[in-house]
Amino acid sequence: MEMVQSKFVTIKTHIEEAPQESMFDIKTQTISTSIQPETNDVIVKCLYLSIDPYQLNRMKSKSSSQNTVADASKITPGMMINGGGLGRVIASGHPDYQKNDIVCGSLNWAEYTVVNNGNMLMKVNNIEFPLSYHVGVFGSSGLTAYGGFFRVCKPKKGDKVFVSAAAGSVGNLVGQYAKLYGCYVVGCAGTKEKVELLKGKLGFDEAFNYKGETDLNSTLKRYFPNGIDIYFDNVGGEMLEAAVANMNSFGKIAVCGVISDYTNSGRRTAPSMIDIIYKRIMIQGFLVSDFYTDELKDFMPVTKDYVRGGKLCVLEDISCGIECIPGAFVGLFRGENVGKKIVKMDEE
Amino acid sequence: MEMVQSKFVTIKTHIEEAPQESMFDIKTQTISTSIQPETNDVIVKCLYLSIDPYQLNRMKSKSSSQNTVADASKITPGMMINGGGLGRVIASGHPDYQKNDIVCGSLNWAEYTVVNNGNMLMKVNNIEFPLSYHVGVFGSSGLTAYGGFFRVCKPKKGDKVFVSAAAGSVGNLVGQYAKLYGCYVVGCAGTKEKVELLKGKLGFDEAFNYKGETDLNSTLKRYFPNGIDIYFDNVGGEMLEAAVANMNSFGKIAVCGVISDYTNSGRRTAPSMIDIIYKRIMIQGFLVSDFYTDELKDFMPVTKDYVRGGKLCVLEDISCGIECIPGAFVGLFRGENVGKKIVKMDEE
Repeated sequence: MEMVQSKFVTIKTHIEEAPQESMFDIKTQTISTSIQPETNDVIVKCLYLSIDPYQLNRMKSKSSSQNTVADASKITPGMMINGGGLGRVIASGHPDYQKNDIVCGSLNWAEYTVVNNGNMLMKVNNIEFPLSYHVGVFGSSGLTAYGGFFRVCKPKKGDKVFVSAAAGSVGNLVGQYAKLYGCYVVGCAGTKEKVELLKGKLGFDEAFNYKGETDLNSTLKRYFPNGIDIYFDNVGGEMLEAAVANMNSFGKIAVCGVISDYTNSGRRTAPSMIDIIYKRIMIQGFLVSDFYTDELKDFMPVTKDYVRGGKLCVLEDISCGIECIPGAFVGLFRGENVGKKIVKMDEE
Repeated sequence: MEMVQSKFVTIKTHIEEAPQESMFDIKTQTISTSIQPETNDVIVKCLYLSIDPYQLNRMKSKSSSQNTVADASKITPGMMINGGGLGRVIASGHPDYQKNDIVCGSLNWAEYTVVNNGNMLMKVNNIEFPLSYHVGVFGSSGLTAYGGFFRVCKPKKGDKVFVSAAAGSVGNLVGQYAKLYGCYVVGCAGTKEKVELLKGKLGFDEAFNYKGETDLNSTLKRYFPNGIDIYFDNVGGEMLEAAVANMNSFGKIAVCGVISDYTNSGRRTAPSMIDIIYKRIMIQGFLVSDFYTDELKDFMPVTKDYVRGGKLCVLEDISCGIECIPGAFVGLFRGENVGKKIVKMDEE
């Protein structure tokens, strides 16, 4: 029986606020690369890991995601952390997967993952794009953006769309989908460079650095003199409050993330309920897991076409090596990533 | 030309918080009971006035309703206040209305109203029910409850429904519609007597006095051990926050009123955005004015059938005489009314 050393990342204790690298440990376990008899397990060597802010909720002692989503249960100190990833099958007891297959799915923040019964793995056939795209633009970030925008916000051409964390993994795609659909799009981000990127390469109509603004309400009024029709919210907090104040009647707000609340459990978002009534605003929370259905079967072909045609810019921010995971994750909450944060775990 | 003295109610100054009777004036004007030549005006003697909490928003110096709804513009100190009412035509220059017709529409808080061009008046034909019903259960309160519940909340039979201000004009009807539709219904109110009324005469499954509760979150957990599917919100504030914490996945919240914010502009409702995401909660503000369409043409026949058959209890709280208007209005914010607050202005 052959054995390999597999490094993996854990949290030392539950994390209740903005995470620090010192809160993580890198440990090593020895795993067998032979399939246990009588199982359909698949052993996957990780190549790319998706690094996502929602994981912080799972690291809290009282996890919000607990009991609501099957694969997003609480993360326990010392234990393995799972998340979206792509890797190569090194051994398989499952008839659908063969050695050397490239697969996407829920992998551990580890060099090797034993996937019980090949659960929720998806084979990547006909490799046409860089493999990393499958954990980002073709993975949950893309689906979150696509489903959140088209299904939750139900846009009309010409709608005025505001996207926060617009240079982030989901935000940049929402803005691009909205532009391709014929909307007017303004994004906000936290650095001058990101703002330039949004207005330049990504084709947003306007973008601004929220850190340079003192009164977000007035800022939004300046960028949306005729009001906001759709707000795709990745941050919550004051930005959501300012957006509500600037929404048009029958405006729609898709709540995708609340960075402000993930890292500061004391801070609560308090939008004007009177505005919500008088402007008949809809606020809708959603999870990407709801979009893994036939209803969104257009997501992949449409997105691949856009990427193929050079219409959708794929913005990746890749660090290399398992040692980078804590820093990559921590950086999400400091706005360090530009586009999709990915850790490349090994050479393809 | 015959003239009549017409008393009317005004505000002395804009009102920014909980209203007091001393903030109102009763004045008198002299109006001609003859139609001005070349006009289609209709002069209406008021019989019943609907007294509604949303009017407080119109009395603020910075009105939230301004510019969003045509007939809910700002109320100016010293000037006439309009609202829902029913009366008898005493003179008409409009071909559709004759002397002695009974009409509903936007009337002033006054003994007589000159309705320009008979604008938005609706004739009450075939008088089958008490006239007061037309400003309550068959008027905007009923339509708010019906449209808000069926169109905004889109209930399923068996849904677990929570209604706040459940003994109020809209809340009591929402609860009754929900019960008739086959839902499990819990209401909250502010006195023991109201709670008894909800559980007794109105047939709610459960009801509680929120003033006797110290932790609304636990209270709702007690009444909804399996969670809330629909929350019909008339109050905002802490109750909305507690409801969000107790909502089931894909729960729906119709925001009809925010008494807590009407009277206290400093207080903001701060629901957990993380709950909203993970439980995919929808929060939707709405206005009854959106329901004056064919889409809700079933409202009136269905409601009349229910009332005729004794299935829907009509809960009215009637004061008599124009002098009662300030007290009736002020009482809304003290929870004094039981059911629909109406002022009877004159004998039929």
